Amino acid sequence: MSKKYQVVGIGNSIVDVLSHVEDAFLVENGIEKGIMTLIDRERATEIYAKTGPSLEISGGSAANTIAGLAQMGIKTAYVGKVKDDQLGAIFAHDMRAQGADFDTPLALPSHKAETGRCMVMVSPDGERSMNTYLGVSEFLTPEDIDETVMADAEWIYLEGYRFDGPESHAAFAKAIAACRGAGGKVALTLSDPFCVERHRDAFREMIDNHVDLLFCNEHELRAMYQDEDLSVALRLAADEVDTVACTVGANGAYIWRDGKEVHAPADPVHLVDATGAGDLFASGFFFGELNGYDTLTTGRMGCVAAGEIISHIGARPEADLKTLFAKHDLM
Amino acid sequence: MSKKYQVVGIGNSIVDVLSHVEDAFLVENGIEKGIMTLIDRERATEIYAKTGPSLEISGGSAANTIAGLAQMGIKTAYVGKVKDDQLGAIFAHDMRAQGADFDTPLALPSHKAETGRCMVMVSPDGERSMNTYLGVSEFLTPEDIDETVMADAEWIYLEGYRFDGPESHAAFAKAIAACRGAGGKVALTLSDPFCVERHRDAFREMIDNHVDLLFCNEHELRAMYQDEDLSVALRLAADEVDTVACTVGANGAYIWRDGKEVHAPADPVHLVDATGAGDLFASGFFFGELNGYDTLTTGRMGCVAAGEIISHIGARPEADLKTLFAKHDLM
Repeated sequence: MSKKYQVVGIGNSIVDVLSHVEDAFLVENGIEKGIMTLIDRERATEIYAKTGPSLEISGGSAANTIAGLAQMGIKTAYVGKVKDDQLGAIFAHDMRAQGADFDTPLALPSHKAETGRCMVMVSPDGERSMNTYLGVSEFLTPEDIDETVMADAEWIYLEGYRFDGPESHAAFAKAIAACRGAGGKVALTLSDPFCVERHRDAFREMIDNHVDLLFCNEHELRAMYQDEDLSVALRLAADEVDTVACTVGANGAYIWRDGKEVHAPADPVHLVDATGAGDLFASGFFFGELNGYDTLTTGRMGCVAAGEIISHIGARPEADLKTLFAKHDLM
Repeated sequence: MSKKYQVVGIGNSIVDVLSHVEDAFLVENGIEKGIMTLIDRERATEIYAKTGPSLEISGGSAANTIAGLAQMGIKTAYVGKVKDDQLGAIFAHDMRAQGADFDTPLALPSHKAETGRCMVMVSPDGERSMNTYLGVSEFLTPEDIDETVMADAEWIYLEGYRFDGPESHAAFAKAIAACRGAGGKVALTLSDPFCVERHRDAFREMIDNHVDLLFCNEHELRAMYQDEDLSVALRLAADEVDTVACTVGANGAYIWRDGKEVHAPADPVHLVDATGAGDLFASGFFFGELNGYDTLTTGRMGCVAAGEIISHIGARPEADLKTLFAKHDLM
């Protein structure tokens, strides 16, 4: 193909504020372990004041996926809202420094909200609990969607978290129409089981009508189809989309395609920080998909990229992912 | 003693922006390896645009030392200027979250400068090259020095980098007078050989008249006394102050006290990022000093704390330092 972009991601633009906490801290402060909870500015200030010394790394789910793809030389762009403030400058720098185009108009300094941030609290077992203040990220509108960019994308990659916010659905609709109208394909990630609960109908409509590739984990897929039996939920999803890639933690991933299920196993990894596991699985999977690898290899690339990200703090890759694929005899 | 604080640090308040670079990048961009260079806002913007994806961690030399001390339960306060902006909030949070008091008045949003930051570029060999935009940190004035805090300190710890800036010397003079007037002691760190070149006379005056404990490394001490022979420079310093603690990289440190030299060896460490080695040496050394350990043990505590900080990215401790001292049979 001769399109300018292989993958264009649309998501919440977030700077992660990472700290280590004991599980008792989560209980005392009413923070649900292992999931993403939306919080307002006041709650963010309250929680931040109670957490220990932190470090800041650019995050955001689709942004992490795009950063991983850009690191591997995939032609990418990212669409998401930051403000013209210090955290916004950090987010924009890190995206462009990784090689992705990022030209979404900035929210002005006069905007009452700030650039979004996510307090990522990492437990001793490596599980992360996320409290997100969306900030200006919530206010992406259809005007922020450049149809020429969407038409110039082989794939657009839509972040489930981005269903929150007043004009999100309209922005996605505009992006999908422009992309599909030019022969492009649509990938969606379900993001989080509680996100699925908030937006099940909108997700269902998008999956049934527009999605070619669905990323999810077992918890999200069960929530989506309200069925405790993962194999049932997988088949329901596979009836609607060309490809379902469902991660199952340390067991790797199940991929449904052309009526067949393939299991891609994951190698054992010392879990340091689970943040970004699903995001980087999507990076690895897309890499295999775009380069025509078979389903098992494509799924394994997802697992290897996810394994890299959970072996250290932060959801942006540190090791060279293609080198890791080669080490695992995947390319 | 019944003073409120055991150590009060005064330094430049800096958020570190850490990235990995090849040595060729340093050469191409005229960045001197292994030292700290002051840069203005424009140069900071130019360099930042060229560096890869980064992460942000609170830094600042004296601030790192105070953070290390606070982690070990030492009663500490920190004095340094940040602005009421996002990076300033991060710096203040991390200092207080570690347990140190931090009540320096904020520079107002209308101030033309921002909170200071330091681009820390880490080479493959672990050496770091620092380009610092001091921002509002430069504008600490005597009015920011609370004499009651200085009088309530067993030790004040003065950062050599803080000699840059228009009212720095006056601010230090006020702090020293208040501290010594109440029977407190003064420690100074020379910070950097080029900092020594910029402020040799002021350093010399302070060492001769006020300093009880001098922290330095071999390069700084040679620059200070303009003598290539380290043993000569050490003796010249030892003639002026009660204690000289001079680090010598992988060889540990030499401590001069009561006319005798003690060599404290360092254990081999896999060097990941040299940032903060001297700062955390000072934390460990102060801990031994404040708790009445002998000179060798005190020096070894400095080496162990320095070894912790260079084994990971960033200049704030990750492991529990007292646990490390116990593992090394130092307490």
